[in-house]
Amino acid sequence: MRFFSFLLSLVYFGTVFNFSIVRSQSKSLQVNANRLTTQLKKLSTFGMNEKGGNDRLAFSDYDIQARIYLTGYLKDLGLKVYTDAAGNLIAKRGGKKNSLSPILFGSHIDAVPNGGHYDGDVGVMAGIEVLEALIENNIQTKHPLELIIFSNEEGAIFGSRALAGKIDQATLAVQTASGYTNGEGITRIGGDPENVMQLKRRPEDIHAFLELHIEQGNVLYKNNLDIGVVEGIVGLKWWDVEIKGLTNHAGTTPMNDRKDAMIAAAQFILAVNEIITGIDGAQVGTVGRIAAFPGAPNVIPGKVITSLEIRDLDAAKIKILFEKVEARAHEIGKATQTIFEFKPIDATAEPALTDIRIQDIIRQNAIDLNYSYKTMPSGAGHDAQDMAVITPTGMIFVPSVNGISHAPEEFSTPEAIAKGANVLLQSILDLDNISFN
Amino acid sequence: MRFFSFLLSLVYFGTVFNFSIVRSQSKSLQVNANRLTTQLKKLSTFGMNEKGGNDRLAFSDYDIQARIYLTGYLKDLGLKVYTDAAGNLIAKRGGKKNSLSPILFGSHIDAVPNGGHYDGDVGVMAGIEVLEALIENNIQTKHPLELIIFSNEEGAIFGSRALAGKIDQATLAVQTASGYTNGEGITRIGGDPENVMQLKRRPEDIHAFLELHIEQGNVLYKNNLDIGVVEGIVGLKWWDVEIKGLTNHAGTTPMNDRKDAMIAAAQFILAVNEIITGIDGAQVGTVGRIAAFPGAPNVIPGKVITSLEIRDLDAAKIKILFEKVEARAHEIGKATQTIFEFKPIDATAEPALTDIRIQDIIRQNAIDLNYSYKTMPSGAGHDAQDMAVITPTGMIFVPSVNGISHAPEEFSTPEAIAKGANVLLQSILDLDNISFN
Repeated sequence: MRFFSFLLSLVYFGTVFNFSIVRSQSKSLQVNANRLTTQLKKLSTFGMNEKGGNDRLAFSDYDIQARIYLTGYLKDLGLKVYTDAAGNLIAKRGGKKNSLSPILFGSHIDAVPNGGHYDGDVGVMAGIEVLEALIENNIQTKHPLELIIFSNEEGAIFGSRALAGKIDQATLAVQTASGYTNGEGITRIGGDPENVMQLKRRPEDIHAFLELHIEQGNVLYKNNLDIGVVEGIVGLKWWDVEIKGLTNHAGTTPMNDRKDAMIAAAQFILAVNEIITGIDGAQVGTVGRIAAFPGAPNVIPGKVITSLEIRDLDAAKIKILFEKVEARAHEIGKATQTIFEFKPIDATAEPALTDIRIQDIIRQNAIDLNYSYKTMPSGAGHDAQDMAVITPTGMIFVPSVNGISHAPEEFSTPEAIAKGANVLLQSILDLDNISFN
Repeated sequence: MRFFSFLLSLVYFGTVFNFSIVRSQSKSLQVNANRLTTQLKKLSTFGMNEKGGNDRLAFSDYDIQARIYLTGYLKDLGLKVYTDAAGNLIAKRGGKKNSLSPILFGSHIDAVPNGGHYDGDVGVMAGIEVLEALIENNIQTKHPLELIIFSNEEGAIFGSRALAGKIDQATLAVQTASGYTNGEGITRIGGDPENVMQLKRRPEDIHAFLELHIEQGNVLYKNNLDIGVVEGIVGLKWWDVEIKGLTNHAGTTPMNDRKDAMIAAAQFILAVNEIITGIDGAQVGTVGRIAAFPGAPNVIPGKVITSLEIRDLDAAKIKILFEKVEARAHEIGKATQTIFEFKPIDATAEPALTDIRIQDIIRQNAIDLNYSYKTMPSGAGHDAQDMAVITPTGMIFVPSVNGISHAPEEFSTPEAIAKGANVLLQSILDLDNISFN
């Protein structure tokens, strides 16, 4: 019945997949939810601040202390533990056939300043729990397994980008929130800047990658859903938008003789909103930063610098939307006697689609476990987006209470996390039976 | 003919004035334009910076050096020179009847950082030139004359406010651009914080006050006019406008689930413009300052703090316009799920009307001297606005080239300045023959 419905869903997607599936014989296995909750609490002690928030910045002393703790814990489980050149902490468990490429799963443990205790942590601790559940139940997969704790996700998505071969000298020189550069930082946690650029993995080096993560949005929680089947991580583009008018005295310059960059900026902000919401879809556009110059209540701003961000799963759609915004901005410039200039900021990310076969595995496991689910994009960036470049990748979301993230109030219930961990566990077991060739 | 047209203009204004006019016997006297130009250049050397701008901040060493120079110069003219408790530098010339109250005239010599060499300086040096012209032509007025160089006009309109009795302990404690508080600053230039609050002058202590000043706007220059007959200094009110929405992740929060304070701010900025320009008149409204929090391209701003300034000659109009803006803001708040809060800032000034009889004198002298003129409000604040509270006050504008002010490029031609100085000279002589009772 179960296998039948799985096949049906494949037919429904209208594609004949070139892989064989032998469903796991361990469908009744579940994670130890209590142990997972205890372990998450233990991890949260590294970097907990007075406000209850998490200051475990990448490369900070807290980050180092947490890594030392986890290394000991993972070694005690009998795993082979090491840190790669990018500062990724990796725990390996051998498979029945060590000639097969490993199944990778994991996330990150670094936080934004005064962040929460679930973003990243959930995926890492659930991954450890999956390994522990397999070990204590004497279940050995055919493929080797690798739990990976990526370095500096919050600052620059560093560790996973290194595996994708995207790190260069400039990235190493970037200063992070901890005060250390990426190069200094990875050295602090056992990495090696000299060799980080040789770390790139080939597709044949990895069987697949899975990441469990909190949603960081309010779609699942608001709709009382258990599991998000992530169809992809949206791409995003950033621009600095500079608007030039003419600085002038607010008292002595009549209203009809002004070239007020603030008025142009206001029209621009509303135009962005109108254009982004003017077509169907999940695309988002945001103006989050603004500064007016000289910036005094009694001076007409001669310059405004603001930001534009557009995100969507489809890079072509981002391009079209930007072109519309740009054209409208120039119309606004003409009408307000100001000049608009757009400068792309090097913080862009291409949309990263997850593997449709792995989406199906995740969806089917949610169904089998009687969990409600929704197929959805990830609006936030994740390590999975870079892993998707080199290997078939899947991503599982669990609900964030009220959609709050990057704040001390970030929370996901133990029950929600356990459900996500069970889907992760079963999906790993399913992936072990799949050939992607 | 001349006297006839003057009377005609009085009739035209529809008012019978309760004063007697005996026109000056010295209508042919003019200032020495070359000497005035030379003296203005000399003053500009105190605080001239590398960009050609003026750094003579109130209470700075440059301010002190310029005051020492001017004190010497005025003493050499045979004048009695002293600094009052507020740091106003005053040069007195006796009149034929020293029982009469003095005619005051002057301006300021302090500048904004990297300001120009004409704002304030022109009125002071023209006043000195008027005294010098009278002295060398052996013309003695009936009323004593007082040239006044007000302290700290740019920072807080300090010196003239002291004469108007508007200084309190809080004003003394305010830190100025020089780094010194007003209290420390006036001590540096010879004032006395202990006695500044007793400095208030009564209406019977002063016959009248005249200020010559550059327009700092582009009305005169653009229209090729010589003299601005200032009908009043507009009042201004400032508000901090705080807009509260909900900070959220720009990637994970759908467009229709946002409480974006930036969107509300943009609608507010455009509403201000629409309301201010929606009725006839010279009122101006400006949003010059803005900050979004947290202020990152990838975060929906949960808070925006911006500013609102409204100026007009009529305080009631400012009130009505603000009430319209406030009402519209609350509508915007409802529509965008944000909350608007307005906090008045203590930088307000009431509108100050100049004396209509002195306006007439200035206008008539412009006509007699064959200078073109325009009756106009001053959009910028000046010492005259506080003097107007305690004595009949007049104000004369000369054109600013391209309307530029508070910048190194600030410039008025020697010819334009000389015309203003001639009107000042003749108006002082006219005032000497007027009784305001």
